[in-house]
Amino acid sequence: MPEQYSNILKLRKLGIDTHSENIIFVRFDSQICRSEGFTASTRVVVSFEGRSIIATLNVITSGLLQDGEASLSEYAFERLKAREGDLITVVHLRPILSFSDVRAKMFDKKFNEHALQSIISDITKGYYSHIEIAAFVTVCSGDNLALDEVIYLTKAMINSGSMLSWPKPLIIDKHCVGGLPGNRTTPIIVPIIAAAGLTIPKTSSRAITSPAGTADVIETMTPVDLTLEQIQDVVRKEGGCMVWGGAVKISPADDIIIYVEKALDVDSAGQMIASVLSKKAAAGSTHTIIDIPVGDTAKVRTKEEAFLLEYYFRAVGLSIGLEVEVLITDGSQPVGRGIGPALEAQDVLAVLRNEPNAPPDLRNRALKLAGLMLEIANVAPKGNGIIQAQQLLESGEALAKFYRICDAQGGFKEPVHARLYHHVPAMSNGIVTKIDNRRLAKIAKLAGAPKSPGSGIHFKAPIGSRVQLGQPLFTIYSESQGELNYALSFLNSTNDVIQIDSER
Amino acid sequence: MPEQYSNILKLRKLGIDTHSENIIFVRFDSQICRSEGFTASTRVVVSFEGRSIIATLNVITSGLLQDGEASLSEYAFERLKAREGDLITVVHLRPILSFSDVRAKMFDKKFNEHALQSIISDITKGYYSHIEIAAFVTVCSGDNLALDEVIYLTKAMINSGSMLSWPKPLIIDKHCVGGLPGNRTTPIIVPIIAAAGLTIPKTSSRAITSPAGTADVIETMTPVDLTLEQIQDVVRKEGGCMVWGGAVKISPADDIIIYVEKALDVDSAGQMIASVLSKKAAAGSTHTIIDIPVGDTAKVRTKEEAFLLEYYFRAVGLSIGLEVEVLITDGSQPVGRGIGPALEAQDVLAVLRNEPNAPPDLRNRALKLAGLMLEIANVAPKGNGIIQAQQLLESGEALAKFYRICDAQGGFKEPVHARLYHHVPAMSNGIVTKIDNRRLAKIAKLAGAPKSPGSGIHFKAPIGSRVQLGQPLFTIYSESQGELNYALSFLNSTNDVIQIDSER
Repeated sequence: MPEQYSNILKLRKLGIDTHSENIIFVRFDSQICRSEGFTASTRVVVSFEGRSIIATLNVITSGLLQDGEASLSEYAFERLKAREGDLITVVHLRPILSFSDVRAKMFDKKFNEHALQSIISDITKGYYSHIEIAAFVTVCSGDNLALDEVIYLTKAMINSGSMLSWPKPLIIDKHCVGGLPGNRTTPIIVPIIAAAGLTIPKTSSRAITSPAGTADVIETMTPVDLTLEQIQDVVRKEGGCMVWGGAVKISPADDIIIYVEKALDVDSAGQMIASVLSKKAAAGSTHTIIDIPVGDTAKVRTKEEAFLLEYYFRAVGLSIGLEVEVLITDGSQPVGRGIGPALEAQDVLAVLRNEPNAPPDLRNRALKLAGLMLEIANVAPKGNGIIQAQQLLESGEALAKFYRICDAQGGFKEPVHARLYHHVPAMSNGIVTKIDNRRLAKIAKLAGAPKSPGSGIHFKAPIGSRVQLGQPLFTIYSESQGELNYALSFLNSTNDVIQIDSER
Repeated sequence: MPEQYSNILKLRKLGIDTHSENIIFVRFDSQICRSEGFTASTRVVVSFEGRSIIATLNVITSGLLQDGEASLSEYAFERLKAREGDLITVVHLRPILSFSDVRAKMFDKKFNEHALQSIISDITKGYYSHIEIAAFVTVCSGDNLALDEVIYLTKAMINSGSMLSWPKPLIIDKHCVGGLPGNRTTPIIVPIIAAAGLTIPKTSSRAITSPAGTADVIETMTPVDLTLEQIQDVVRKEGGCMVWGGAVKISPADDIIIYVEKALDVDSAGQMIASVLSKKAAAGSTHTIIDIPVGDTAKVRTKEEAFLLEYYFRAVGLSIGLEVEVLITDGSQPVGRGIGPALEAQDVLAVLRNEPNAPPDLRNRALKLAGLMLEIANVAPKGNGIIQAQQLLESGEALAKFYRICDAQGGFKEPVHARLYHHVPAMSNGIVTKIDNRRLAKIAKLAGAPKSPGSGIHFKAPIGSRVQLGQPLFTIYSESQGELNYALSFLNSTNDVIQIDSER
């Protein structure tokens, strides 16, 4: 074997942002392409100072790079902690063994515990391409995961990231199974529970397929991207926090999976349960309440579906030592008036500030959940929780606690909606009888939510409202004309987002 | 709506090859990113002179592009037929409606005819990202497609591309369900059948997960990338052709799907049947023979599996007016001696040239299939086909026809194996009792096949051979040292690629 070859390349910065995909750029006529047989779309291992990533090769056919040079996508530069001028080595990727379990699952072979541990560990390390993650998300979608598989997945996700621990025996948390625009009870509940002296280290996620995740909403008022140490400081000082879970690497695989779920616009039950409960367990919770809104156009459409989810949540919780209470709630229409990060934050503040025009549905939901949490934690006698929660809210103690938590997280700012807007009027007189949450959410997303935090919808006519021809039903806010036009063009192509029946 | 915005950008060539993925590169601070809300990984529609593609946005954070400029991946430049300096328009992608049927299939809702027509049509137009195609491939994998879904998929694939028609009433074809290294009967059968005066417009595919597809093998001897018109000329002149199906856009969606299947290393039964039969129908065949090799390490492992495939092939054939005969053959060991494009081509030529050391297994398989085809076409009486095929081969008529077909396709050249090689010796005396086709195929792929056509394996010891310690079992050929090393490192990490039992 006489041939000599070198697989060392010098990095140049080209400044190409590919979101969360690792790409390496190499010249078509470079020694490494010729000697290693690399062509576009080959998967390779790139190493620098003991760290390795797996990247997809893009081949440069122009003079952007010199022989012996390579470049990386911005994400790959970050993950490798490398800079211009650094020397990297590039070698072939060995087959990723855990992917054979994904392939076997396509043929209906169940995942065992080892398989899911390996898959989640490899995804965490960045070994899976987006194509491979898409296949994994797909085999886990629908009702393709049995209870034991969801338990294994949950445990694998807990093991993949950091764990928080607290010096208190009872740590309480809550989660809402999304799909209901505007249902932003977290930033109301956390200050109530913390004001009652309990510990609630709440981590939230960003939007998957919705116009806003709770973390997106809170971020319009206070920083949510805190380190583990910062979170522990905030909770030690104030008893509660309202942060983004991804920032603390509590479940790093989850964030990569969620990116692909978002691209596919799917969100499977098994993945969702594993994602939610692994984050609760990793955040050190002992008790948690799950709110499942049910409605025609909510994420969960029937009571039967909700009962099945309740069973999974309880059973998986049991297997990981987490006490889970489920509350099945009405999901027939949006909660509050805003849809989109800043617009929902404005609703939250109206409730906390006890403003007379605060959305009563959001207020009532938050009080109901907070009340149940106070009862479970034995702070309030059974049946008395909601009254105690109401007292904490109306006395201003919750608002004061909210500001203190925001201060501890980095400071409070008022959320501001976008400057471009369009009022959508009623096309007839009558009574609002039906609201299509999915289409409303799509309009808010097309208007730019959650990427543009000020974009979304301000909703003016809940079910049962009497409206007049020409009266605004909702207002679309957007930070860019292109997106506003696009939302309007979708609105014009669709019927019955809000159904108005004439009175008889 | 007072804001003005422009979505027109001027193209610059950066020369970035991303294989078959459409990428558009735009500056982070460009007006279009700000006004349209575009960020990395957004999917957009790029239009030029009435043509449109869908592309994924990569954001340039450096000075590679000026404001008002954009660049495309090489593949996107090609698909859009655009050049440096051309003005393109970029707009948001409307949701791809057909993908909601893929999502529904994740929840076990069956595909109907309309759904599969729309999906295949959208994939053909390049509307699906690789992530979306990966999800589609995954929901179709395993035995997730019922018979009617396979029929719809087959019809959709037929409709997605060009159709060939011939002035003869009987057009015959054959196909082998892969997984058996070296089983390259096509370039032997085509000249025999054409020499018998029949019409056989054979299109073949490139490798999906194997070290060589038939098109890869033939390409080491003659061009296979012909236009529709050229194919028709060749067949009119010589009665047969041996070309790559993808080149003529007979089933353009199939090639994109195959790229993702390759990345995932999966190949589902339903997709495979639809892919095979749609190509036969689109190529104008009336009769076809399907060879299904069965063996422990072949693609089809059990007779039961082969019977089920036979049922699907016949039933789908019936529904699209194609007469299908299935031949279930022995798939327990590689056919011929070569694995890899050029090495397999050398076996083919040895058979056609009636060389005394020509691999008898390849010769016998080709004659058996050709004989059955002559009988089905009523050229030979039942039971006499194989004798007639043998006469055409031994008389040299088949070889003469082979050269004439190659000449018509653009000329014949001798296939050449790679210059780097390594002999793998027997580790003991004994008899070869078992061969692991899958691992042999993997070694050939790691050595560079089929990308490097001269790479692969030359196999010296079929089952039943008596071997001595140190005697070569097979030789690995590779065109690059890196790949040869990688194949050897895999070989050293694995056991029993070839099992030798001591004689008692």
